[in-house]
Amino acid sequence: MTAYNAPLQDMRFTLNHVVGLPQVATLPGFDVVTPDLADQVLDEAAKLARDVLAPLNRVGDQEGAKLDNGVVRTASGFKDAYWKYAEGGWNAVPFDPEYGGQGLPWTLALPIQEMWASSNMSFSLCPMLNQGAVELLQAHGSDQQKKLYLEKLISGEWTGTMNLTEPQAGSDVGAVRTKAVPQDDGTWLITGQKIFITYGEHDFTDNIIHLVLARTPTAPPGVKGISLFVVPKFMVNEDGSLGQRNDLRCAGLEHKMGIHASPTAVMAYGDNGGAIGYLVGQENRGIEYMFTMMNNARLGVGLQGVSIAERAYQQAVDYAKGRVQSRALTGKDPAPVAIIKHPDVRRMLMTMKSQIEAARALVYFTAAALDNGHTNPDEGARKAAAALNDLLTPVTKAWCTDLGVELSSLGVQIHGGMGFIEETGAAQHYRDARIAPIYEGTNGIQANDLAFRKVLRDGGEAAFTLIKDMRAVAAEAAAQPGDDLATMAANLTDAIDAVETASKWLLDTGKADMTAVAAGAVNYLRMFGVAIGGYLTAKAMIAANNLLREPGADTSFLEGKIITGRFYADQILPSVRGLLKIVTDGHRSVMGLSDDQF
Amino acid sequence: MTAYNAPLQDMRFTLNHVVGLPQVATLPGFDVVTPDLADQVLDEAAKLARDVLAPLNRVGDQEGAKLDNGVVRTASGFKDAYWKYAEGGWNAVPFDPEYGGQGLPWTLALPIQEMWASSNMSFSLCPMLNQGAVELLQAHGSDQQKKLYLEKLISGEWTGTMNLTEPQAGSDVGAVRTKAVPQDDGTWLITGQKIFITYGEHDFTDNIIHLVLARTPTAPPGVKGISLFVVPKFMVNEDGSLGQRNDLRCAGLEHKMGIHASPTAVMAYGDNGGAIGYLVGQENRGIEYMFTMMNNARLGVGLQGVSIAERAYQQAVDYAKGRVQSRALTGKDPAPVAIIKHPDVRRMLMTMKSQIEAARALVYFTAAALDNGHTNPDEGARKAAAALNDLLTPVTKAWCTDLGVELSSLGVQIHGGMGFIEETGAAQHYRDARIAPIYEGTNGIQANDLAFRKVLRDGGEAAFTLIKDMRAVAAEAAAQPGDDLATMAANLTDAIDAVETASKWLLDTGKADMTAVAAGAVNYLRMFGVAIGGYLTAKAMIAANNLLREPGADTSFLEGKIITGRFYADQILPSVRGLLKIVTDGHRSVMGLSDDQF
Repeated sequence: MTAYNAPLQDMRFTLNHVVGLPQVATLPGFDVVTPDLADQVLDEAAKLARDVLAPLNRVGDQEGAKLDNGVVRTASGFKDAYWKYAEGGWNAVPFDPEYGGQGLPWTLALPIQEMWASSNMSFSLCPMLNQGAVELLQAHGSDQQKKLYLEKLISGEWTGTMNLTEPQAGSDVGAVRTKAVPQDDGTWLITGQKIFITYGEHDFTDNIIHLVLARTPTAPPGVKGISLFVVPKFMVNEDGSLGQRNDLRCAGLEHKMGIHASPTAVMAYGDNGGAIGYLVGQENRGIEYMFTMMNNARLGVGLQGVSIAERAYQQAVDYAKGRVQSRALTGKDPAPVAIIKHPDVRRMLMTMKSQIEAARALVYFTAAALDNGHTNPDEGARKAAAALNDLLTPVTKAWCTDLGVELSSLGVQIHGGMGFIEETGAAQHYRDARIAPIYEGTNGIQANDLAFRKVLRDGGEAAFTLIKDMRAVAAEAAAQPGDDLATMAANLTDAIDAVETASKWLLDTGKADMTAVAAGAVNYLRMFGVAIGGYLTAKAMIAANNLLREPGADTSFLEGKIITGRFYADQILPSVRGLLKIVTDGHRSVMGLSDDQF
Repeated sequence: MTAYNAPLQDMRFTLNHVVGLPQVATLPGFDVVTPDLADQVLDEAAKLARDVLAPLNRVGDQEGAKLDNGVVRTASGFKDAYWKYAEGGWNAVPFDPEYGGQGLPWTLALPIQEMWASSNMSFSLCPMLNQGAVELLQAHGSDQQKKLYLEKLISGEWTGTMNLTEPQAGSDVGAVRTKAVPQDDGTWLITGQKIFITYGEHDFTDNIIHLVLARTPTAPPGVKGISLFVVPKFMVNEDGSLGQRNDLRCAGLEHKMGIHASPTAVMAYGDNGGAIGYLVGQENRGIEYMFTMMNNARLGVGLQGVSIAERAYQQAVDYAKGRVQSRALTGKDPAPVAIIKHPDVRRMLMTMKSQIEAARALVYFTAAALDNGHTNPDEGARKAAAALNDLLTPVTKAWCTDLGVELSSLGVQIHGGMGFIEETGAAQHYRDARIAPIYEGTNGIQANDLAFRKVLRDGGEAAFTLIKDMRAVAAEAAAQPGDDLATMAANLTDAIDAVETASKWLLDTGKADMTAVAAGAVNYLRMFGVAIGGYLTAKAMIAANNLLREPGADTSFLEGKIITGRFYADQILPSVRGLLKIVTDGHRSVMGLSDDQF
């Protein structure tokens, strides 16, 4: 088992000097976010993550969640941890103060969420799914629904789940078959089976509020015929007390490669006639409502990529400092040295560190766009931020989760043979990380979302606006003294040029040859991700350079930031140019084989 | 559980038309390798792999090997499978006929080995490690040792193991501390602990012959003071019958992320005074002897990357053809289609297929160089082949095993949520594959081997010889009709140019700045691997183009080969150019941070 210490210094630096938390704190409703409060909240979250959640990560992996006669037992210590978390008020961070939420901006909520997922990804999924349910009810629930459910979902007294997937309806949510039949009393009877329901059943709380997609008898086919229902595990009386058990049950838990402590349930609704459900909003608008929380959920999953990579990185650094093996490459001393002294181990650690910091900045940056997109009082700024958030969300989800897999794999590699042994813990991160590129919309779906909905649909407006901002930062970097900034400026400019060329190709090609665009979409998204990561890294380098001139500056940290950024410029950014040819020229052979030639 | 069917058509095509099995069959001693025999051997191996080994792959993953009171029980069915394998003569394929071997070339042995590792990687490790022991004894054992052990290790009646690693001696074999003290009767008493001993204990056979690295009392420090010993589990009488149990035991089995059915043992030698061992060859030459089998072992591990990727690919194809989800991207039909119709799924499958075929060709090509390097009667050709084999071995080991991880990860991704569920089987490949970049010398060590020993040491002679051959094939491709070959010629030439530039940089830089070379070595190896893969793919495309003109040609297969090669040219080769800048320009920031800045 390994320790986890939240990278508070990098988090604060990124929030304050790269993505603009101080600006977010000026938005209406966020004036509570003083620097002191932000510091204090991050410190307290870091303690809970370090002392309570992190020590349970391996226990959870080993024990998993167990289904016994319809009851799910979570791993040892998880229920206690949940209540420490809920009683600390952590469940309420980003929600509406009217229902007990703390009303903090996403820009601050995401760093906190990062700590939960780093310290214990399996645990963090329960609040994360609950968050989706809260957002939906905040936005679309009736007053009565809000009154009955919202306060308890925000306090953590109950938890909420999202029930979308069915065996035949994974990526294609429109294929949902679960039925909802109206009753005379205004309720609906829900029957059907849902799969992959995260924390669909557990022992943390007395009640679980399921949000379920289903079809009403008169619904049109496809995504336009899906409605959203609240289906509580136990019926809730008008006074909020629990009534009888509803007709739903956990019919099984999946045996997964990772996130063992997170119960992934098969949910059976209506074995005995139908589970009682309550329509949310209007009929047939379920998918539209779902998109209310989809962007945030995708941002949260992107964050998991950062979180798991950070945990894997901390463990790899720890191992590389302690493991003594082989003499140094240069010099005459035959004594073996810690492997962190070996250039290739160093390269792997820098590959992790530089990309984790860039990806972290992207998540927080997207969160700042989300906050501004919701509440910036200037209409132009608000719309621009919303468009930026829309553009960035699929990039964040896919790029960061791909990095989660790649970097946790490097974490294993740094451990050598010990990385393959489960007791070490590196392997768990590699296993846990693998789900994130899949759920909440596979990364292939994110790439299509970026290419077709976020770039083609607006004629590239949001993309070219961002590219313009990126060029401004590259120019600013070029104006700074020093070789590190100059290299960043040059390599960032080359990457931006490549992204711009690819984006123009996409706009030229998209309408006539959708297949070519779809075949290149994943690599196009990757180009975008790496380039934006470079843009934010350049911002960080500039900020560090400026801060270094201030008295009392933490030179070790700030110089480290610049060197780490230089590595990103040296070793990560050049891949963008390498992908350009693949995106624009590489599609011709993709569909060339017939099915039976595979 | 998924089926495995050996890709016999691609194997035969690659052997006969890309890497030159017909030429290998003309070498002394290999005249038995007629086309008919090769066909028959491959067919029979494919049956055993499909019918016996593949069905046990998941059983092995679930049950694992168990240690109970010093005795290791392998998973259900494994012992029976071992005896089917041994009684079929498969253990004897590449070995000396004088001791019961079949004397087949490595060029034919490797495709067979590929089937074992594809069908059941955990199982295949037992014969693979045994192979190392046999090679060592063939080359360095005394007549008496050969007589006592070799025949039974070749027949499979006993198995052999390799005992190198100790807790403090992983990559740094020179740090071995196990002791060997001479006795008056000419034997040695061995005491010490070895870890990560593959099949160090099992229930397949009555005896296990351990080859153990240890230090004698007078040994100098480091790699020059290590000797090699034969240490049988049960003493062997002169007539070959078993005597008393030796003083060694399995002290534990590791809990690994994958290859669960392969028992990875902690071996304790000499708990009760010392295990009796017999010196192989001369004192202090153990490491030198070890290199006899190291090249082959590394080639075998590289092959595992191909094997596991092939198995993951077959499963992904199967799933992509059967899973119906979402309508087609183009056209008006709203009905959902099999996901193999979706461009991004297709891209992932092509990414797997094109690189698996290239990597397979590289393994077989290296095997052909190995055979020629051993037995080509023309001295110049023999030396050139040996140099080529030396050059290719680290590339094959590292590139193919990295691909094993990357492509099995794509295999999971193609499955969507089902890929993360253990019952599907895709996850096992992803877990199993992760060990191959680590053992038999980490891929970082392979990269240093390539850069320092295989390129710098001979002033780039072997590398530039290969580059010249590659250019000839690029020119030949350019002279062929058709856009596919023209694209391959152009992109291959660009990749070769990049490899040549990087190699020249390496030669210019290496003596003065070893750190720069070591920091770029992994990416340099990757460039080499991808480019050689392109070279062999171009060869395959040319051969397919030529064969298409013959009457009765299998046009579906041959045209598929060309399209797959085109994809490699389109989407894989361009990454070589992208890595060039990273190798030659990217090293400056690698060592920039102090240890405490991580």
